[in-house]
Amino acid sequence: MTFAEQAAAAKRASRELATLNRGRKDAALHAMADALLAASDQVLAANAVDVAEARAAGTSESLIDRLALTQSRLAGMAEGLRALAGLADPVGDVVRGWTNANGVRVRQVRVPLGVVGIIYEARPNVTADAAGICLKAGNAALLRGSSSTLNSNRAVVAALHAGLVAAGLPAEAVQLVEGDRSVTAEMMAARGLVDVLIPRGGAGLIAAVVDGAKVPVIETGTGNCHLYVDEAADQDMAIAIMLNAKVQRPSVCNSLETLLVHADIAPSFLPRALAALAEAGVTVHGTAEVLPYSEEIVPAVPGEFDAEYLSLDLACAIVPDLDAALEHIRVHSTGHSETIITDDRRAADRFVAEVDAAAVLVNASSRFVDGGEFGFGAEIGISTQKLHARGPMALAEMTSTKYIVDGAGQVRG
Amino acid sequence: MTFAEQAAAAKRASRELATLNRGRKDAALHAMADALLAASDQVLAANAVDVAEARAAGTSESLIDRLALTQSRLAGMAEGLRALAGLADPVGDVVRGWTNANGVRVRQVRVPLGVVGIIYEARPNVTADAAGICLKAGNAALLRGSSSTLNSNRAVVAALHAGLVAAGLPAEAVQLVEGDRSVTAEMMAARGLVDVLIPRGGAGLIAAVVDGAKVPVIETGTGNCHLYVDEAADQDMAIAIMLNAKVQRPSVCNSLETLLVHADIAPSFLPRALAALAEAGVTVHGTAEVLPYSEEIVPAVPGEFDAEYLSLDLACAIVPDLDAALEHIRVHSTGHSETIITDDRRAADRFVAEVDAAAVLVNASSRFVDGGEFGFGAEIGISTQKLHARGPMALAEMTSTKYIVDGAGQVRG
Repeated sequence: MTFAEQAAAAKRASRELATLNRGRKDAALHAMADALLAASDQVLAANAVDVAEARAAGTSESLIDRLALTQSRLAGMAEGLRALAGLADPVGDVVRGWTNANGVRVRQVRVPLGVVGIIYEARPNVTADAAGICLKAGNAALLRGSSSTLNSNRAVVAALHAGLVAAGLPAEAVQLVEGDRSVTAEMMAARGLVDVLIPRGGAGLIAAVVDGAKVPVIETGTGNCHLYVDEAADQDMAIAIMLNAKVQRPSVCNSLETLLVHADIAPSFLPRALAALAEAGVTVHGTAEVLPYSEEIVPAVPGEFDAEYLSLDLACAIVPDLDAALEHIRVHSTGHSETIITDDRRAADRFVAEVDAAAVLVNASSRFVDGGEFGFGAEIGISTQKLHARGPMALAEMTSTKYIVDGAGQVRG
Repeated sequence: MTFAEQAAAAKRASRELATLNRGRKDAALHAMADALLAASDQVLAANAVDVAEARAAGTSESLIDRLALTQSRLAGMAEGLRALAGLADPVGDVVRGWTNANGVRVRQVRVPLGVVGIIYEARPNVTADAAGICLKAGNAALLRGSSSTLNSNRAVVAALHAGLVAAGLPAEAVQLVEGDRSVTAEMMAARGLVDVLIPRGGAGLIAAVVDGAKVPVIETGTGNCHLYVDEAADQDMAIAIMLNAKVQRPSVCNSLETLLVHADIAPSFLPRALAALAEAGVTVHGTAEVLPYSEEIVPAVPGEFDAEYLSLDLACAIVPDLDAALEHIRVHSTGHSETIITDDRRAADRFVAEVDAAAVLVNASSRFVDGGEFGFGAEIGISTQKLHARGPMALAEMTSTKYIVDGAGQVRG
């Protein structure tokens, strides 16, 4: 099938999905989970081929870890599909409604987006995850995975198809998009066939999709997250939150990348903070003002504050006041999650009001900015754009709305 | 100023606007209204120059009517600004909020989008209207009007600046973007400076912006609206709604363009409907099956069902059943407003569920699909896309949201 044929089939399937009730969709999610487990041997064998090829190509072990499936990871993917079946259906939710003076009743109701394209990197678990979230919200999914995961993705999608068909749904509800880079370009240009594109992956992938797409895109993920330790900060709290945000899982988008310290608290706070970071194995990249506090600090280079490390590295600067912290964040933030540690109400209020990001935190770890932690039960990514959805995107964010206008013959005067 | 300088100034102004309370914004809206009225003579004189040039260039009288300002239209523009001051402020609205098990409090709060670009045609009233809506929602506005309205727009914006400055707000909150087509291209490419572009105007303008923009766009307006008269329709109601939707204001996007009639009701309904349409001065463009019903029908040509007339013309076809009506709408709809006339619950339910449009109406005129009729008090346009906003866009649709996460030192386990 060409991409255009796949997209047309997805559009047809999306029309069927749009009117399914929750029971039908949940049954399909369980059937997909069952089929995935039943196909464990095939999926793991296919994945072993991908892993062997990646290793032969000299892929780093951290990337291979993302690529590799195990029986237990497969069980987790199936569990994820079943968990989606347990969540409320966003489709049909009445967002608001009212009756006009002339008796015309208006309701704004959630409806599926239609066809959702996901472009992602070498993580085969995303294949089941994204397919499930799309299905639960009544959308058809066009999944464009990495070529290095092709065997795994084919096996996973074959299993998902078996589940869909067993549940009486069209297999075209979930499709893997294969082919060279020209197919990605076709997908990004498919206005009218693809309703939204969501890139999931690193900054380079996201920038390429945002830049190249004619289809509406939801930008996700890049998180150059700051922690500002105010002069009125509780230092123990600041150290605990700093360590949690930096160390607990450094490879993710809501982890900490830059520490900003108010000049008045720096002499007492920085020695403690730097010792704690050193003990946790974190390399600090500091500006000239930070260097005197420890011999282990690596001098910050130009551009040090502009990119995510996604590793046990942390940029550090001293700022003269809250205004300077706000200005630093304004210049370097990717608009993901920004944190202030303070006991000063005015400082907290200004930080919350003036920082322009999907999430602004006071005295809490940025690691909480996550669909699971927010209690959404599912997450397709964290939007860092302002249109449609901002922050963790769950099922409701995978829908649009429709106005239903009910009358008894009313006309406009 | 270059466009880049204007956009940077707008971004700076937007940061100030974002934290203004409602009182400050409402005072500015009243000051802008006062200043507009105070500048009546200058605005009308500038408009007279535009009108004279348009007439000399052979512009049609209907376009000149859109372009021309009068004392009473100017009063209407000022009244529009005052009406905005009377509306609730969407900024700061808590969309939802909860407390996590660990005591972390999360609120999703409405915040301004930032810098909104509006690209529009020769209607100087849009200048004041769009500036006011953007300001009320805390956004800076970059207004790109038609070159044929340049004198009028300059005079209007000068008055709005006087009002902004009198209220202590930055004049850069509202800016007119001047220059040749290359400036429009710059505006459409200004990622990071312009947060959203909204084209307001005809189908050609909208398509050009959607196609050319790198900045997120909200598509508005094109409405190829259908009325399907089901076999179970109340015929008197169908005729009243048909006439209202077609004739009351044919030039607007929510007016009727195509009449679809169920074959079983056609023999009794069409003679009455065609007589009523003829009496109202409507030219019907019918398919071969419709032609025998009246000698006044113009045979439909290829493509007849694909574009808006925006005039006293109506395309008409007979369909064998509801499925055929749904299929016709699926193929030809622009996703604006689609109507069924029926007393049959099942037909109404299927139509509402299966038609993919911003608004679906049962037994009511599509002319109700309008921000004013919906009681929103303001409207920047009617979105026909699925992301961010769909249907009439008012103040809430001119905002984004931000998650505010409040803790007392919590970290992720």
